[in-house]
Amino acid sequence: MFQNKICLSSDNWSPAHPLVLKAVLEANEGYAAPYGADFWTEQATSLIQEVFRNPCKVFMIPAGTGANVFSLKLSCRPYQSVICTDIGHINFQESGAAEAIVGCKLLTVPHQEGKITTESVEKKLQAERAFGKHTTSPRVLSITQPTEIGTVYSLAELSSLSKLCKAEGLLFHIDGSRLYNAAIHLNVDLHEIVRAASPDILSLGGTKNGLMGAESVVIFNSHLYEGTDHLHKQTLQLLSKMRYLSAQYIPFFRDELWRTLARGANQKAQQIGAIIETIPELSLSYGVKTNQIFFTAPAAWIPLIQEKILCYVWDKEKNEIRFIASWNTSDQDIANLRSVLVEIRESVNTRQYNTVF
Amino acid sequence: MFQNKICLSSDNWSPAHPLVLKAVLEANEGYAAPYGADFWTEQATSLIQEVFRNPCKVFMIPAGTGANVFSLKLSCRPYQSVICTDIGHINFQESGAAEAIVGCKLLTVPHQEGKITTESVEKKLQAERAFGKHTTSPRVLSITQPTEIGTVYSLAELSSLSKLCKAEGLLFHIDGSRLYNAAIHLNVDLHEIVRAASPDILSLGGTKNGLMGAESVVIFNSHLYEGTDHLHKQTLQLLSKMRYLSAQYIPFFRDELWRTLARGANQKAQQIGAIIETIPELSLSYGVKTNQIFFTAPAAWIPLIQEKILCYVWDKEKNEIRFIASWNTSDQDIANLRSVLVEIRESVNTRQYNTVF
Amino acid sequence: MFQNKICLSSDNWSPAHPLVLKAVLEANEGYAAPYGADFWTEQATSLIQEVFRNPCKVFMIPAGTGANVFSLKLSCRPYQSVICTDIGHINFQESGAAEAIVGCKLLTVPHQEGKITTESVEKKLQAERAFGKHTTSPRVLSITQPTEIGTVYSLAELSSLSKLCKAEGLLFHIDGSRLYNAAIHLNVDLHEIVRAASPDILSLGGTKNGLMGAESVVIFNSHLYEGTDHLHKQTLQLLSKMRYLSAQYIPFFRDELWRTLARGANQKAQQIGAIIETIPELSLSYGVKTNQIFFTAPAAWIPLIQEKILCYVWDKEKNEIRFIASWNTSDQDIANLRSVLVEIRESVNTRQYNTVF
Amino acid sequence: MFQNKICLSSDNWSPAHPLVLKAVLEANEGYAAPYGADFWTEQATSLIQEVFRNPCKVFMIPAGTGANVFSLKLSCRPYQSVICTDIGHINFQESGAAEAIVGCKLLTVPHQEGKITTESVEKKLQAERAFGKHTTSPRVLSITQPTEIGTVYSLAELSSLSKLCKAEGLLFHIDGSRLYNAAIHLNVDLHEIVRAASPDILSLGGTKNGLMGAESVVIFNSHLYEGTDHLHKQTLQLLSKMRYLSAQYIPFFRDELWRTLARGANQKAQQIGAIIETIPELSLSYGVKTNQIFFTAPAAWIPLIQEKILCYVWDKEKNEIRFIASWNTSDQDIANLRSVLVEIRESVNTRQYNTVF
Repeated sequence: MFQNKICLSSDNWSPAHPLVLKAVLEANEGYAAPYGADFWTEQATSLIQEVFRNPCKVFMIPAGTGANVFSLKLSCRPYQSVICTDIGHINFQESGAAEAIVGCKLLTVPHQEGKITTESVEKKLQAERAFGKHTTSPRVLSITQPTEIGTVYSLAELSSLSKLCKAEGLLFHIDGSRLYNAAIHLNVDLHEIVRAASPDILSLGGTKNGLMGAESVVIFNSHLYEGTDHLHKQTLQLLSKMRYLSAQYIPFFRDELWRTLARGANQKAQQIGAIIETIPELSLSYGVKTNQIFFTAPAAWIPLIQEKILCYVWDKEKNEIRFIASWNTSDQDIANLRSVLVEIRESVNTRQYNTVF
Repeated sequence: MFQNKICLSSDNWSPAHPLVLKAVLEANEGYAAPYGADFWTEQATSLIQEVFRNPCKVFMIPAGTGANVFSLKLSCRPYQSVICTDIGHINFQESGAAEAIVGCKLLTVPHQEGKITTESVEKKLQAERAFGKHTTSPRVLSITQPTEIGTVYSLAELSSLSKLCKAEGLLFHIDGSRLYNAAIHLNVDLHEIVRAASPDILSLGGTKNGLMGAESVVIFNSHLYEGTDHLHKQTLQLLSKMRYLSAQYIPFFRDELWRTLARGANQKAQQIGAIIETIPELSLSYGVKTNQIFFTAPAAWIPLIQEKILCYVWDKEKNEIRFIASWNTSDQDIANLRSVLVEIRESVNTRQYNTVF
Repeated sequence: MFQNKICLSSDNWSPAHPLVLKAVLEANEGYAAPYGADFWTEQATSLIQEVFRNPCKVFMIPAGTGANVFSLKLSCRPYQSVICTDIGHINFQESGAAEAIVGCKLLTVPHQEGKITTESVEKKLQAERAFGKHTTSPRVLSITQPTEIGTVYSLAELSSLSKLCKAEGLLFHIDGSRLYNAAIHLNVDLHEIVRAASPDILSLGGTKNGLMGAESVVIFNSHLYEGTDHLHKQTLQLLSKMRYLSAQYIPFFRDELWRTLARGANQKAQQIGAIIETIPELSLSYGVKTNQIFFTAPAAWIPLIQEKILCYVWDKEKNEIRFIASWNTSDQDIANLRSVLVEIRESVNTRQYNTVF
Repeated sequence: MFQNKICLSSDNWSPAHPLVLKAVLEANEGYAAPYGADFWTEQATSLIQEVFRNPCKVFMIPAGTGANVFSLKLSCRPYQSVICTDIGHINFQESGAAEAIVGCKLLTVPHQEGKITTESVEKKLQAERAFGKHTTSPRVLSITQPTEIGTVYSLAELSSLSKLCKAEGLLFHIDGSRLYNAAIHLNVDLHEIVRAASPDILSLGGTKNGLMGAESVVIFNSHLYEGTDHLHKQTLQLLSKMRYLSAQYIPFFRDELWRTLARGANQKAQQIGAIIETIPELSLSYGVKTNQIFFTAPAAWIPLIQEKILCYVWDKEKNEIRFIASWNTSDQDIANLRSVLVEIRESVNTRQYNTVF
């Protein structure tokens, strides 16, 4: 087992926060209408609408890939396409679900530190549109905020992309499975991100920020409402006992638990980044902004790190490792991490010394 | 609200059993590998394998429609088709998910008291195969046990259908979202149903029998294993924090909670059936076998019943009502039901009397 | 080979009319813009627009199943469904293409002499809509004119169905692969059918009425135009050298060849029907209206008929045979048919006589 | 109109060769079994089987996108993926048909002079497989021979890719819509390409080499035969009067018309390339190998060229133009082209001279 290792694999290795489980327990009271017509879903929906300060239709969703696929399915007809980065979760971590279930093409552009730029979108649009009916009709721009490598679009960048979408007749979708960590980094409220980005649809997370398992899709563009109740069911996202999913969101938004947990995770990531910066052999790939830390290490360090720390090698060729801090990463974890890295350094250097002589 | 009504709408209006929530709480301990690689999923999987006494591959699934769609997707290529009854859940209650996500045609045959007969399958096969490539290639026979109207295939009937499948080169799929209630009625263990039916794939329930939200797909035919890990993800059925789903199955199978709960629900249904039989104006549509009760009532009774009892009108033309008892249907509920029905009878008869005179 | 047999199998066994091939030869002149941007496609499109006396968008299509699938794909989103009869070509003769390529469910109702009735549509709508998001959202009514068994909707029947569609928010699709034969029977022009039916989309035939291979989709509802150029390509219906397909329609509509050929085929069918009526052992299933003839025969006759005549047994249980006359069915064919049937009768009766004595 | 322009747009602007039309006319004789069960389809199939000297199953197909989609649909299940170049026709010129109809993801790699390299395939495999079920399962390598920019894989390169496919468990698909031009360039017979490449499936062209409209899919791997008759129909590729399509292939293969026509087109392309090389302002992008010529021109030349010559600007940024020679490109066309280019040069240089002074 991995009990003795420090777990920096991913925030979905973490347990749920006790207040979340408490809310689930409280929802276990008597009968409730199924399929989302219950009191808890109504409450969670209202809370989300209040948080974003915008009229919107909210759907509860069991997992993140489902949130993205449902978002794209309600936005796209099959001759249309979705622009995203090559490392976009919808393109690279969802097992071809968009193509298989939405039937649309994903038009990928190379990312710039995880982000998509207005220039690259414009260039892709031009290339795809040059061939008329022989190519697809671009319909959605989908970005991930924060990105898959922990970088964060500024409000200005979001505004620019949004403006581009309006000008080009694209719908704007944000995959916000860790949106909370971006808000903390930007030091803004969630509705300020939405005000800047003016997205048509948002995949809103929860599971990675201390819930048991709850995501949602928030539709801001009312022209997209039609058919969504059917699609929620048809894309396999509708739970019968929805109350147990929705209840998780209640303390999360009512008591601003999302903020406490995301802030905690971001702070721990800052501490981890600071430790890495003290070790000359390690090099942060990007500034640490959210709860994700990417850094490169000498090849010889990789197995030693993985022996003590649960984490992913993100890029084998570059010897790049990903750490993710979570709401429950402890001070002890941080202290242990420091010791482990220092020990590895010493052992490697001693070995090298011994090798030389 | 509906607090003062007796709830006989459906078993998915019921809360989870306390032991199930206890198991979920116990799973909320420390880090766990995501996407089903955790200790609880391993344990739940083993328990299911033991229960069925057959080698099988088990996938945890958030909701029943997902279980069916995943089952069909792993069994069918798009030129193939699935035979089922016209009232089959996959055909009539899943919002076209099979067609949209599997892409296969459902070949429906009229049901006989909810069941499909070997004769009707043979006839459908003949009709479809007569046109070769111009029609589809039937590949799966899918039945629901117990059926959508609460009837139950006997072990002999299951054997006959299974034999037919073997002879005709069909895969045999059972939608067992309430399989537990059928096992109680048949007075057999779950593995005896599987021994008789020898299904290739089983959609196994849980949510309707006291879980918070947990279903599974059990694949007995090892030729169907290939690609299923990918399809589990691609059909949006893979949860990151799978432990909270899997943990629910642990007391359910380890402590035979499934048996206690299904037996309780079936017994309450028997009591409800007995009450209905005492009222001359009401008429049971079928003998009560599981936790589902179907009966017809005079048209004038329908609104009166719905005023006091949460339930569905199953067939408007026939004035047929469906009651479903649940693990938590109480003795008080039964007593109240009796009173309500007697009161309705008196009020209607008085009114008629007054109308006549 | 089948040279010595009378061919009454289907009108797609027939060759193309010489004037059609002449038009194809004439189109083989010099360079032409591909993918439908050529002179012949422009001309054929104009002719179709004139014939229907209605603004419409026209797409050339290589084969009938493609015309229907393209029609449904442009009309339906995957959560929507299509109402048709159980023997509808889209349901029973297209190998599941609608489900596989459009992803929609076909809601079938039993036919009445091949037709769908307003009552059966209303009943199906009610049943499907009763379950809201748990079932599909009916979107298209699709009929075949003439029907798969050679019956013909009257203009009044078309009007009623059209009115129902408007009232119920359904799009109206006509599969008119043999529309010409229906027009001849009804003694109306093609535009009169469209005026009565006011369809949103029409699959318009050609191949079965003397063309080499040319069908089309005619969209009357301009709200459906969006995306159709892309879908034409994406659903694999766009030919590069489209001129050879389009050219076939030029003499067909310009010189009213469609009328000559369909009238010829219908007349021959009338003659065949008259012959069948003279033979007491044979019984027409329906009055002969177009070029299709359905009749039942004594079981013993079936192999004898098939020995001399190329034709399909339409319904084995009922000993029902289908004959289809074509534009090139000759007077000699008719004379031979008469002889063959008389001979069969004599041989069977003699045999029976011999058997008795 | 474009009558006075030289047409170098594409080989699908060309008419059909007279011998092809003669074969079509000859097929217009009497009745023929529909849906490919006719004499001409049998003959064309045999000829293709002989040409490739390998057992194979052959399907006639109306257009190239259909050939590719049918090929991928029979090879892939939806959780699997197809590796191809970013400029691969299946990725960039088929309006998203693979995603919409096959439902699979296309994994693109940057091309090297139009080709895919074993290194890039291996790298893509590694990247995609690193994430197990969270990404797709690569199943097909699809190349275009000759490539979309007129380069040609050598037999050795084909062998290497084939070997890689075997080693990695990939099916090998060749899009050979202009395979004939590659064979002429390589100076080999068609079966030698197949011997070197050992493809599992081949999309075989025809339309671009002088046919009216005929493509085919040739399946060499007999494990892929299952279900293909149904898929041929379901993917909308089955014509009723198939004889008119198949007949085109008869002189094409029986009389080696394919060779005459492809050789002619390649020779004309050589002459065009030679002319371009004589003009210092123009620069061939690649050596001319087949009937496709790519070259860059000064920006000011582009509108002047397009005024006189029908052709595509392939890459606006690079001022790259594509010419395609065809079987019917005439000596007069070549002479005219030379004059046009010389004239343009003079007019531009004069203008520049005038501008300077």
